[in-house]
Amino acid sequence: MTTTLVDVATPARTVRRRPGRPRNEEIDSQILQVTLELIDQGAEITASRVVERSGVSKAALYRRWPSLTTLIAAALDVGREMPPAVPIDGNLRESIIGGLLGGSDGAGLGGYSEARFRQRIRLAMADRELQKAYWKSHVSRRRAPIEAALRAGIEKGELRADLDVEACFDLIAGVFYYQLVVRGDRVEDPKTRARCRAALDVAWRGMEARPTV
Amino acid sequence: MTTTLVDVATPARTVRRRPGRPRNEEIDSQILQVTLELIDQGAEITASRVVERSGVSKAALYRRWPSLTTLIAAALDVGREMPPAVPIDGNLRESIIGGLLGGSDGAGLGGYSEARFRQRIRLAMADRELQKAYWKSHVSRRRAPIEAALRAGIEKGELRADLDVEACFDLIAGVFYYQLVVRGDRVEDPKTRARCRAALDVAWRGMEARPTV
Repeated sequence: MTTTLVDVATPARTVRRRPGRPRNEEIDSQILQVTLELIDQGAEITASRVVERSGVSKAALYRRWPSLTTLIAAALDVGREMPPAVPIDGNLRESIIGGLLGGSDGAGLGGYSEARFRQRIRLAMADRELQKAYWKSHVSRRRAPIEAALRAGIEKGELRADLDVEACFDLIAGVFYYQLVVRGDRVEDPKTRARCRAALDVAWRGMEARPTV
Repeated sequence: MTTTLVDVATPARTVRRRPGRPRNEEIDSQILQVTLELIDQGAEITASRVVERSGVSKAALYRRWPSLTTLIAAALDVGREMPPAVPIDGNLRESIIGGLLGGSDGAGLGGYSEARFRQRIRLAMADRELQKAYWKSHVSRRRAPIEAALRAGIEKGELRADLDVEACFDLIAGVFYYQLVVRGDRVEDPKTRARCRAALDVAWRGMEARPTV
C-alpha cells in the first residue's frame, strides 16, 4: 500500500472531446485542463486566458468557480485521489510508516509529478488565500486516513493516550516536505528515503505507549 | 535564547552611501540591496536590472558573483546571522525545544519577515539550482548549533546512541515548515505554537535514551 502524504498531483488525464454539445462534466474538465496547462507552464492564470483557451463562456466559468482561487485549488487536485484507509489490524507501524515510504520496492513516493508539486508550492507562497483554500478543501481532507489509523492506535493502547494526533501528522509529513522544499532532494533517492525512515522511526518511538515493566 | 530553525530572512539594513569612490564592501552591499529589492517586489532578477539599479558595472557584478544563482542566494541571506551555540549544560531539552519555540514570552519565532520567507521558497521552487546553492551555502550551515547540541546529548547518554542526527534535525525543522508552507499558518499564532510544541515533544521523546529500569 502506498499512502500519499506529500500532496503532489499526478499527471492529469487528457480530455477527450465528443461531438455535439458538451456535457456539464466535460465543460468542468475542459476548464480544469486549461487551468492546469497554465499552471504547468508557469503562466499567470486569468479568467480571460481560461475562457479563451477552453472555449467556455465567462458565465459558464464563473457559475462553476466563483473565484480564480477555488478554480486553481480544484485544478491542482485533478488526478488526485483520496488515499485508501490504513489497515489497523496487524502491524500498525508498518502500515503507516511503511505505507508512507512505499514498502520495500522503493516505488512509494515516486510516480508523482514533482514539477506540479513545485508549482503548487510556488502558487501557495504567492497567495495565502489560495494556500488556505487548497489546505481546507484538499490537503486537510487527505490527512484523514492516517489520522484515523493513529487514533485507532491510541484506542488499542499501542500509542500514547495523550497524543495530539494533528501535531503527530504534521511531524510525520513535515519530514517529507523538508526534503522537497528545503533540501531540494528527491524522495525516491535512496539516501533521502533512508533519512526519512530514520526520522519516522524517531517520531514513532515518541508516539508509542511505553511498555509497563 | 531564540534559535532560528525556519530559515527566514530578517529585514535588511539600509545602505548608507559615503561621498567619494565607494569601497569594496559598499559595492557588495549596494548590489545585494538592489537584488533584495527585486526579490521583495517579486520581480524577475536579471543582471541588467541589478546593474541598472545599483549603478555598478556588469564587470564588477560578475567579478563578485559569477552567476545570478549565487547572487540571489547571497541576497536571501542578508541580515541573517549564524544562530548562537546551544548551551549543553543544564536542561538540554529546554535549550533546544524551548529555544526553537522562543521561550515563554511567545516572541520566539516571530520577528522574521514572513514575506521574504515566502519569496525565498517561491524562488527555490522555481529553480532547483538556486535551492541547492542556498541549501549548501546557508541553510545547511545554520543547522550546526542544534546538531552539535544533539550530538552532545548523545555523548551525555541523554539521547539514544543510534540517532541519525541529520534526520532528527529534519524531523524537528519539518514541523515548522509544514505550518508555513502547507497550512499557511503563522508560527507566532498560539494555536500553531501549541501544535509545534506537541510535535516537538513527540520528537524529543523518540530521541531520548530510555531509562534503564
